Amino acid sequence: MLSEFDLIKRYFAQHSIQDSRIALGIGDDCALLNPSPGMQMAISSDMLVSGRHFFPDADPYKLGHKCLAVNLSDLAAMGAAPLGFTLALSLPEANQDWLAEFSRGLLALADEHHCHLIGGDTTKGPLNICITIFGELPPGTALRRDAAKVGDDIWVSGTLGDARLALAGYWNEVTLSESDHQLAATRMHQPSPRIALGMALRGIAHAALDISDGLAGDLGHILEKSAVGASLFIDQLPAGPVLQTQPQELRRQFTLNGGDDYELCFTAPASNRQHVIAAAAKSHTAVTRIGQIEANAGLRLVDEDGKPVKLQYKSFDHFVNP
Amino acid sequence: MLSEFDLIKRYFAQHSIQDSRIALGIGDDCALLNPSPGMQMAISSDMLVSGRHFFPDADPYKLGHKCLAVNLSDLAAMGAAPLGFTLALSLPEANQDWLAEFSRGLLALADEHHCHLIGGDTTKGPLNICITIFGELPPGTALRRDAAKVGDDIWVSGTLGDARLALAGYWNEVTLSESDHQLAATRMHQPSPRIALGMALRGIAHAALDISDGLAGDLGHILEKSAVGASLFIDQLPAGPVLQTQPQELRRQFTLNGGDDYELCFTAPASNRQHVIAAAAKSHTAVTRIGQIEANAGLRLVDEDGKPVKLQYKSFDHFVNP
Repeated sequence: MLSEFDLIKRYFAQHSIQDSRIALGIGDDCALLNPSPGMQMAISSDMLVSGRHFFPDADPYKLGHKCLAVNLSDLAAMGAAPLGFTLALSLPEANQDWLAEFSRGLLALADEHHCHLIGGDTTKGPLNICITIFGELPPGTALRRDAAKVGDDIWVSGTLGDARLALAGYWNEVTLSESDHQLAATRMHQPSPRIALGMALRGIAHAALDISDGLAGDLGHILEKSAVGASLFIDQLPAGPVLQTQPQELRRQFTLNGGDDYELCFTAPASNRQHVIAAAAKSHTAVTRIGQIEANAGLRLVDEDGKPVKLQYKSFDHFVNP
Repeated sequence: MLSEFDLIKRYFAQHSIQDSRIALGIGDDCALLNPSPGMQMAISSDMLVSGRHFFPDADPYKLGHKCLAVNLSDLAAMGAAPLGFTLALSLPEANQDWLAEFSRGLLALADEHHCHLIGGDTTKGPLNICITIFGELPPGTALRRDAAKVGDDIWVSGTLGDARLALAGYWNEVTLSESDHQLAATRMHQPSPRIALGMALRGIAHAALDISDGLAGDLGHILEKSAVGASLFIDQLPAGPVLQTQPQELRRQFTLNGGDDYELCFTAPASNRQHVIAAAAKSHTAVTRIGQIEANAGLRLVDEDGKPVKLQYKSFDHFVNP
């Protein structure tokens, strides 16, 4: 049986860190960081539970990717540059095949974003993965949820709804071809954190967040924190490539309420439209203008002709939803 | 049913933070910290699982205390001053009585150490508590595991073994009076992180760690990382007040191998003895000199007469132990 220390050494401590900001990595009571002088630190924690956030038999490589991706996405939503993360892992058993694949998926994404694994904890127990991530950004540049202003455009990166469509496929809510289902499932299992876009939007966007529980619900947090309202152009919401082939009703529902896309939703003054488009180009990320911040509280949906659309929108809540 | 956001707001976001280093707390994609200029950050994560680190019916107030205490103890072992922490919580249900008590115990200890809850995550799932803690210290002053030197004294804070004795009581390995068991159990359920001592030992001690899995095993990490050996004066190990009344064999076993005490074990040059004693006095923490670092690898136990003692010592490992 592999011991706790062997496990960490073998699977997670293998890549050497070449970053002067990491003074000490895995292996002591604490890791030691030297924050860049004058920079602010952004910190976020996400806990993923088997059977709730992922299927118990999930591909461990993709799972490793996703666990870090959702945390990187929180940094992206703040406009922060990744620095490092800790990993706490509760495992039913020290399954070496699983660990090898999980750590490979995790560290591949970590390397891609120059985000170093600096510490953590392992224990025996029901499968649970908790990552705390650290990033940096110049003070005053964070894209906060409370910073939306009346008149701001509302934007979204990439496309929405394919992750939710993949889930609908698993649940037999819809019938998808095998290849369509696989394509949609990639969005669900291997989201792309929009780090480059988030950083490029510093000083251009006002408010931002990442869409984990659905656009309508998540945008609602910006509206609440900023004490504003919004109109959304329901038929401007960029549906994922697979969802685009589905009927309008499903497109509207899944672009508006589907979770797990990890795209950025952000607001920016109308005068910054060209800067937003330049930031998107610079970060090789598509963006779509999908609405407007208004003084009138609440979220209104309008169709292509500017007519109000009645559509239920709700967000996922871990303690209210089943 | 209480929603995820209500839950965080009601139980965990209630105390206002008055610390200029915390630029943004709970409620956005990330928390924002302004590290003190020139300071290094110390970071540690611990994950506690129901049925493994604590009994499923554990008193939630004490559990809240303990979860933060084990993390503060990691900062203490590095000599860092607490700054803040994130809390990720997986709960089978949003039990309001449990949450009220858990958060009360957690935040009471947080307030005592000026350590702010800056963010986190809540989800539904098997009970699992993951805290990541942040502290600060001047660069170059961290008490690292790899810093022990041949000739160093080995010291331990407080007393050892009462936490293990309490467990022996629960397991009916020993028979204890009700009052003795309660006294010992306080050490197990509500450890005191040695923050003040850790900070006072900056520049005085060489290596340090906190004893979570047992003195012998944990000291072994210092010996391995520092490439040294040690002799321990087995009968100098300070037994807890309840363990002191037990037979010598049990005292030796539990002071040497008992986990969960969260005392500091540290090494310091013999020339710093008076400084160590002054640091202990300043931090109102008892310390005992219990051995010596030697060039010869391995851990040797000697009795009062300097004679070798044969005693099994082993550390707890989550994947090797049952």
